[in-house]
Amino acid sequence: MKELFGSPGKASGLLLRTGQFFFAGASVGAMASAAGFSISTAFCYLIASMGLQALWSLGLACLDIHALRLKRRLQTPILLSLLAVGDWVTSILSLGAASSSAGVMILFVVDSDLCKRDRKLECNMFGISIALAFISWFLLAISSYVMMWMLASVD
Amino acid sequence: MKELFGSPGKASGLLLRTGQFFFAGASVGAMASAAGFSISTAFCYLIASMGLQALWSLGLACLDIHALRLKRRLQTPILLSLLAVGDWVTSILSLGAASSSAGVMILFVVDSDLCKRDRKLECNMFGISIALAFISWFLLAISSYVMMWMLASVD
Repeated sequence: MKELFGSPGKASGLLLRTGQFFFAGASVGAMASAAGFSISTAFCYLIASMGLQALWSLGLACLDIHALRLKRRLQTPILLSLLAVGDWVTSILSLGAASSSAGVMILFVVDSDLCKRDRKLECNMFGISIALAFISWFLLAISSYVMMWMLASVD
Repeated sequence: MKELFGSPGKASGLLLRTGQFFFAGASVGAMASAAGFSISTAFCYLIASMGLQALWSLGLACLDIHALRLKRRLQTPILLSLLAVGDWVTSILSLGAASSSAGVMILFVVDSDLCKRDRKLECNMFGISIALAFISWFLLAISSYVMMWMLASVD
């Protein structure tokens, strides 16, 4: 089995997972602290999806730290399959959440003037949260591709 | 190289491409025929993205027909790389478009009563178009995974 950048149980893998956790957590924080986020279901779904991603990435970061400390290899086919499925499901949910929030955000800012009219909505915070969610999804997508590639080249 | 369901140049691949083209085209048709779709940028982006996907799938369906008629193999690494990159870019754009439209749609139907208040908006047609877009994206995702899997198991 090849050793790729971002493989589980390597320092690069740990770096990716930490980045995913950090950006997903920051996205949840930014959205939850913005006044009026509950106006749209898409924003609530973003919090749920980014919360799930943060938990998933934190769990895998702990697994990476464990493997690095004990110098154990994690690349067994069964574990890789589990990680690949989990990564893909999480990344599809995250992209869906980030995109739907972005669609609503563009409706608020460009198509209607809701953000200008309703000063109680913190549209800047919505935007920051969505941008962080896209960065987090991008890092997760890299992990997903690496996982898939390793799994496909096992046999 | 393994022969998988949905490989390029096989009947199952042609079936997948035809399905993608059909659903993407139907999604464009449903959205473009719905009155008031230009109220949201996300709906316009759905038309653009599904249009691109329909063209891409039609092109690859023609390639599959050509390969099936002449009984030629299409699984060269260079062609597979091109198809895999194209498939992935298209499927990420499609999922983004379908999700952002779904986010706006939920805002219209659940969060606000815009669909009930504004009878000029054909919300049912929006919903049908978004559902067709998700089906088309799902078929494209299958093709993308098959392409990626074949590419990873080449070497």
